Amino acid sequence: MKTYFELVTFTTQAGTSLHNITPSVRRIVSASGIGEDIVAITSQHTTTAITINEDEERLREDIKHYFENPAPADRPYQHNDIHLRDCDPDEPENAHSHLIAMLLGSSESVAVQGGDLLLGQWLSLMMIELD
Amino acid sequence: MKTYFELVTFTTQAGTSLHNITPSVRRIVSASGIGEDIVAITSQHTTTAITINEDEERLREDIKHYFENPAPADRPYQHNDIHLRDCDPDEPENAHSHLIAMLLGSSESVAVQGGDLLLGQWLSLMMIELD
Amino acid sequence: MKTYFELVTFTTQAGTSLHNITPSVRRIVSASGIGEDIVAITSQHTTTAITINEDEERLREDIKHYFENPAPADRPYQHNDIHLRDCDPDEPENAHSHLIAMLLGSSESVAVQGGDLLLGQWLSLMMIELD
Repeated sequence: MKTYFELVTFTTQAGTSLHNITPSVRRIVSASGIGEDIVAITSQHTTTAITINEDEERLREDIKHYFENPAPADRPYQHNDIHLRDCDPDEPENAHSHLIAMLLGSSESVAVQGGDLLLGQWLSLMMIELD
Repeated sequence: MKTYFELVTFTTQAGTSLHNITPSVRRIVSASGIGEDIVAITSQHTTTAITINEDEERLREDIKHYFENPAPADRPYQHNDIHLRDCDPDEPENAHSHLIAMLLGSSESVAVQGGDLLLGQWLSLMMIELD
Repeated sequence: MKTYFELVTFTTQAGTSLHNITPSVRRIVSASGIGEDIVAITSQHTTTAITINEDEERLREDIKHYFENPAPADRPYQHNDIHLRDCDPDEPENAHSHLIAMLLGSSESVAVQGGDLLLGQWLSLMMIELD
């Protein structure tokens, strides 16, 4: 049985941003030499999410705008009472980012066939930075 | 190591609809001859989602109704300004379908045990058409 | 090819509650003797969900509070018309729990590396009881 793993890191700016990780995942699948299997893509952060959808310029703006609404940053969250927590006083007030990450989900699984990702024609794997 | 893959296609009507894909996935698991493993079920479209829940007649109506609300079709979305995009002028105005697909998620992973899906008693695998 | 499976059961109280299942999953991965692979964690109930995020005391309260809002329990749902369904008259009115479980998702997949879960520093696997 063959398995292959890679950790990929991205540098992001403050705020919500979308990162098309399909080229990275395709390169990793190719490097693995595995022809047929499943690849699991999993976020390693509390305020990032993994999703699959269309990487269309205007839809990217809709996604950024839309996913600010379900958990607005300016509502009160207990997690944002930094002074009541046993943590660094510089911790960001990002409870809304945690909640939206949970809505979007931390992992997606995709088939590998013929040594490549089996993704529908208009689909891209995306990492969403929510904080 | 044994792997098995099948692409299943469904014909859907316009609008939101639920499709219980448990029988298809059970048949595919059986055809694979694999006894113990993981099966990943992944949507191949931008406006469909994969979910696991109860296939109960009245809950199906709740699901269809509920998932129209979080991203109403009649709000403005940049992706729906078809004339500003480099695409076919007949493209559907379906940004809301993309967003809801991302909320529901594109894949689920389920254990295979004794050659069958290990799904809780009331659970079904469902493909949701959102457009 | 080696596979390993375990079913873990939890006793929960009425209402929404979060259960950090990371220690259970780490123990299972260790018991499997598998060094490198993928572990899929899948809920077996219609009103529970699997998520990955930070197990911080105050964020737990935010999560419980937040996930009561997207599908309020006191709205009308067809699934809650127990008398119109072919089921036990004592069935709970829990359509909202089903819907929120679908928003959160039923499964997550995580890499196993060096015989342990590869989870980001602040991440925990959580089972959320929604009913």
